[in-house]
Amino acid sequence: MFPETRFTELLTVKYPILLAPMAGASTAELTAAVSHAGGLGAFAAAVLSPEAIHSGIARVRELTDKPFSVNLFILASTNPEPQQVAQALELLAPIRKELGLPPGEPLAKYSEDNRAQFEAVIEERPALASFTFGILTKAQVEEFHSRGILVMGTATTVAEARAWEAVGADLICAQGSDAGAHRGTFLGDFEESLVGTMSLVPQMVDAVRVPVIAAGGIMDGRGIAASLVLGAAGAQMGTAFLSCPESGIPEAWRSALMNARDDQTRVSRIYSGRYARGIVNEFMRKLTPVAGEIPPYPIQNALTGPIRRAAGEANRPEYLSLWAGQAASMSRGLPAEELFAALVRETWAVLRLASGEATTPGATSASTSDASSTSR
Amino acid sequence: MFPETRFTELLTVKYPILLAPMAGASTAELTAAVSHAGGLGAFAAAVLSPEAIHSGIARVRELTDKPFSVNLFILASTNPEPQQVAQALELLAPIRKELGLPPGEPLAKYSEDNRAQFEAVIEERPALASFTFGILTKAQVEEFHSRGILVMGTATTVAEARAWEAVGADLICAQGSDAGAHRGTFLGDFEESLVGTMSLVPQMVDAVRVPVIAAGGIMDGRGIAASLVLGAAGAQMGTAFLSCPESGIPEAWRSALMNARDDQTRVSRIYSGRYARGIVNEFMRKLTPVAGEIPPYPIQNALTGPIRRAAGEANRPEYLSLWAGQAASMSRGLPAEELFAALVRETWAVLRLASGEATTPGATSASTSDASSTSR
Repeated sequence: MFPETRFTELLTVKYPILLAPMAGASTAELTAAVSHAGGLGAFAAAVLSPEAIHSGIARVRELTDKPFSVNLFILASTNPEPQQVAQALELLAPIRKELGLPPGEPLAKYSEDNRAQFEAVIEERPALASFTFGILTKAQVEEFHSRGILVMGTATTVAEARAWEAVGADLICAQGSDAGAHRGTFLGDFEESLVGTMSLVPQMVDAVRVPVIAAGGIMDGRGIAASLVLGAAGAQMGTAFLSCPESGIPEAWRSALMNARDDQTRVSRIYSGRYARGIVNEFMRKLTPVAGEIPPYPIQNALTGPIRRAAGEANRPEYLSLWAGQAASMSRGLPAEELFAALVRETWAVLRLASGEATTPGATSASTSDASSTSR
Repeated sequence: MFPETRFTELLTVKYPILLAPMAGASTAELTAAVSHAGGLGAFAAAVLSPEAIHSGIARVRELTDKPFSVNLFILASTNPEPQQVAQALELLAPIRKELGLPPGEPLAKYSEDNRAQFEAVIEERPALASFTFGILTKAQVEEFHSRGILVMGTATTVAEARAWEAVGADLICAQGSDAGAHRGTFLGDFEESLVGTMSLVPQMVDAVRVPVIAAGGIMDGRGIAASLVLGAAGAQMGTAFLSCPESGIPEAWRSALMNARDDQTRVSRIYSGRYARGIVNEFMRKLTPVAGEIPPYPIQNALTGPIRRAAGEANRPEYLSLWAGQAASMSRGLPAEELFAALVRETWAVLRLASGEATTPGATSASTSDASSTSR
């Protein structure tokens, strides 16, 4: 038995395919489309107010009665020094000017109340709550469990996966360095936590008992099949669904994905104050030399928000944050339902091919031992 | 039919498993052990004189009559300015002193004559010649072909793979960012060429017609099976064989591999002047702040040679170059023959598991389409 059943049975879904939560890009329509097709849709609640979380989840439930997950960031409260904000605004001033925006001002708030967001999600009781940017306490995990909500933590290293297992997470998402958008790293050194999906998944599978979900660079059935073969219980895909018409991204971003190359992305903290992978553009090139002076998430994220919105409206990709994984060139721009059907078809076509391999003469002579020998 | 037969039939070997060439670490014994077991051993000729290439290959042939490959770097001739060497030696002086070495001196030569190395390999007529750090001309590829030698180029991006295909390479090694030791990058930006194995392989498979060999982070049968599922014709493994008793590495390095963690490696140019992935140690920490002042490969490589040799003899891992891929924690320290047998067993056990999956109800309902639907 492949470990995928550990996911499909736990979540009562048909296929071990998860939509990645994409704060600011995914929509209730995309969430519902993936769940409706037999995967696990994800509703990205991380940048939403409690009211928007309630109404967004209500919208998902209008569109499907299937299970879905809700994602939150784990954030400390933010109260930046005025001097810090003034300096950050000064660095952004030339870009605001170029886009015809008025000079930037300090904001009344830089993020939603994280505790209030948690309460909204607990009240809504989705099948699964997933978390990134930090770790919950045992008591917090129990709060979700007591309402029948499963918990998935995001880990970029084996140490982070062990930490999530220790607080009682039911699943762990192994975010490889191939992944687009924000890095979930919360322990240790950022650069040393850039571990490729191919390397990260088997090491994490060997280190924890809970099911591991592979994420990063998975764009088609080959990637899903490879995730399962590496020992993951499922494959989480963000960039693959980002070019779907149901996703909420500006046309300039969609176009950048459809024309992406493998050697075009970088991990940068200039857009949001937190390391994230996106397609290199003028925004990244301009601010990289002053990256050290940029305030942390969520301050920079809030301050660049108006720039990114204006760039989207003006169809100017050079001032968007063009989040993308390292296999973005495989973007297809298909409607979500059609893409999902193709992914399922491809995955099992690849696995059937593998099954042919498993009975070749070379293989037969080597296949006398027990399947459990795959772990050391 | 899986693409692996494109490799096994081309090279007349039994299994789609390749030893990575590891200049300075692999030995004729290790090369022969992998070839003898049914894979494709690799003899690393890149830092050897023509005489040592001839005698090393003779030794491989004493040990096995099976096919093997020989690897070379592609290097321009080096004639450093005295000032450049003096500055590099000054940066290394405190470490030499700490290891009890006399002050460093400029060297008579910094690398072997690349053209003479090529001629030695052509004369020896191995089954395959593989190359890294650059690209051959069409005429050079034809020189190898005319002697019945197949050519494999190393590519870290799709653009590099296309360039190798254009000059007539028979195979392309897709070196993902998970890989240990030197990056093969020869076009474009170094950081943007750090594409994870999971992302790189399918994009490269779709972009070229020649067989693609996956490399980077592959340590066991799960990784080999995943490589084949992603569309690779074979899996090349370096770090996995580095801890074998047949490899020529100091005990301190072997011990570092056996105790490695996923979040311990970094890509650095301080050891050799060229970016390479290794386990972070005191050497890397000390020189990283002055990395910009370090001369290019092969100058720095030659100047740090005595330090690394002395560190190996003194069992001091802090001044070795501890090359390692991102999944080094899966090192097993087994004899090469035993490791190879385990890899074969594991790979087909995983693929047989996958074959079970391919006949589950969910899968059957989705498996009516043609297998070729895996490509866009």
